[in-house]
Amino acid sequence: MKRMMSNIGIGVDIGGTTIKFGVFTKEGELLAKEEIPTRKEQNGELIPTDIQNQIEKMLLEGQYTREQLIGVGIGVPGAVTDDGIVNKCVNLGWGVLPIEKIMAEKLGTTVKVGNDANVAALGEYWKGAAKGYHSMMLITIGTGVGAGIIINGKPINGAHGAAAEIGHIPIIEDETQLCNCGKKGCLEQVSSATGIVRVAYKMMEQYNIETILSDKKDGISAKDIFDGAQKGDKLCSMVAEYVCRSLAKGMACAAGIIDPECFLIGGGVSAAGEYLIQLLKKNYTDCYW
Amino acid sequence: MKRMMSNIGIGVDIGGTTIKFGVFTKEGELLAKEEIPTRKEQNGELIPTDIQNQIEKMLLEGQYTREQLIGVGIGVPGAVTDDGIVNKCVNLGWGVLPIEKIMAEKLGTTVKVGNDANVAALGEYWKGAAKGYHSMMLITIGTGVGAGIIINGKPINGAHGAAAEIGHIPIIEDETQLCNCGKKGCLEQVSSATGIVRVAYKMMEQYNIETILSDKKDGISAKDIFDGAQKGDKLCSMVAEYVCRSLAKGMACAAGIIDPECFLIGGGVSAAGEYLIQLLKKNYTDCYW
Repeated sequence: MKRMMSNIGIGVDIGGTTIKFGVFTKEGELLAKEEIPTRKEQNGELIPTDIQNQIEKMLLEGQYTREQLIGVGIGVPGAVTDDGIVNKCVNLGWGVLPIEKIMAEKLGTTVKVGNDANVAALGEYWKGAAKGYHSMMLITIGTGVGAGIIINGKPINGAHGAAAEIGHIPIIEDETQLCNCGKKGCLEQVSSATGIVRVAYKMMEQYNIETILSDKKDGISAKDIFDGAQKGDKLCSMVAEYVCRSLAKGMACAAGIIDPECFLIGGGVSAAGEYLIQLLKKNYTDCYW
Repeated sequence: MKRMMSNIGIGVDIGGTTIKFGVFTKEGELLAKEEIPTRKEQNGELIPTDIQNQIEKMLLEGQYTREQLIGVGIGVPGAVTDDGIVNKCVNLGWGVLPIEKIMAEKLGTTVKVGNDANVAALGEYWKGAAKGYHSMMLITIGTGVGAGIIINGKPINGAHGAAAEIGHIPIIEDETQLCNCGKKGCLEQVSSATGIVRVAYKMMEQYNIETILSDKKDGISAKDIFDGAQKGDKLCSMVAEYVCRSLAKGMACAAGIIDPECFLIGGGVSAAGEYLIQLLKKNYTDCYW
């Protein structure tokens, strides 16, 4: 028996480890999802065909016709211009790649490609925590600090696809080490999951205060630090305070440039929840209107 | 004899001291200009009628019919939302004022209102230094530090009309005095014309180096400092370097948020020309990709 002939869209999230696929109704209801490994060999040149094959497979499995597929949206972990051209994606091995055009030709349907944080922001704007807002900035605190900006329903991609790179704004005044990007003093150096741990090790050396972090033989995680801070551990609290002050300053800089209606915090570190939010709010109010 | 029946637009720039008017062809050619004093008494409530009267007068003088006037554009020195509502304009005494609606009713034509820096940016984008670019940020360094952002032909106003307030992003780490805005560490505190002079006095006290600034009996200006720096005065050079480093950091923060295709520098201090540009470029490259 054939499914009803309603239209579907397919969303693709290309990550460094897996590529995730979702089949959606036009209203955004998830009908099916699958994932495949990201084959990064040969500078990631197998990826477009892998995506094509997986989509063909899911169309078959769901008994969808070509005509039912109204479009494919793809999120890429790198810079993407307004024209859907990837402008370097180190994680996948891609240089400059007109991925929107390539995938549209392969799939014979409309394809839209965006930076993964931007399309995540678009999702939150359409169906998630920013529903009802006109403009917003999503900040994801994970291994790095990424962001997506939506203004009046549209993502801000930037002239080189490098908008919303809040992780690399230079606001850490006394930084001595280089960031992965080659510059010094990037927000990410203290406010990403890895940055938070770095700050903790630095402060442990600098202050010599008794802390529950000393017991962590297998290494410290950002979660350990926020857990410790919430339990009243002094060193953890100092780290959390410094990290949130830096993040709040970054948010204040963003507010001074685009004045969004709201900020959303996502990524692994956002699991620290209300404690993190309150620390951010306090520090944000302290340095911005 | 009647003028040819070509269409015209009128541009109005409301400043703290004067209101400037320009009659333009649809192509942006200036046909006539005049100015009147800004009457700020009674919380600026005379201003809308003053503007109306002046426009009526200029239409008469130019023998333009009502039908020839296709619209009026107004720049306001304060926050303006997407809907043309002024959201506080301290300089004029205005609070929240639906100025676009008020002026459209008074004039019986289409009226568009924007923040003055935003509409200045729009002008540079259409006819000026940013012609041909898709996105840009204009930074004006005068008494304060203001800015206007254009992305794909549209100004970014912000949720509260407070976008492009680069003068108030908190990036001066060791600031001890309060900014006019009530917070501490705003870019404007060191990089506006008044900020530059403040930095000079501070450094003169701190370093006790011989400088041509000591001879200025009637007070120092930002121009004196940049002139001195270009002539090799050591203290002036130190001030210029610090000011440009701060400004470049602010620009790098803006680039990390919106990734514009180009920056434009305007305002009185931009008279320092190529010297200023080179110092900014050097410091910008130092802290951003």
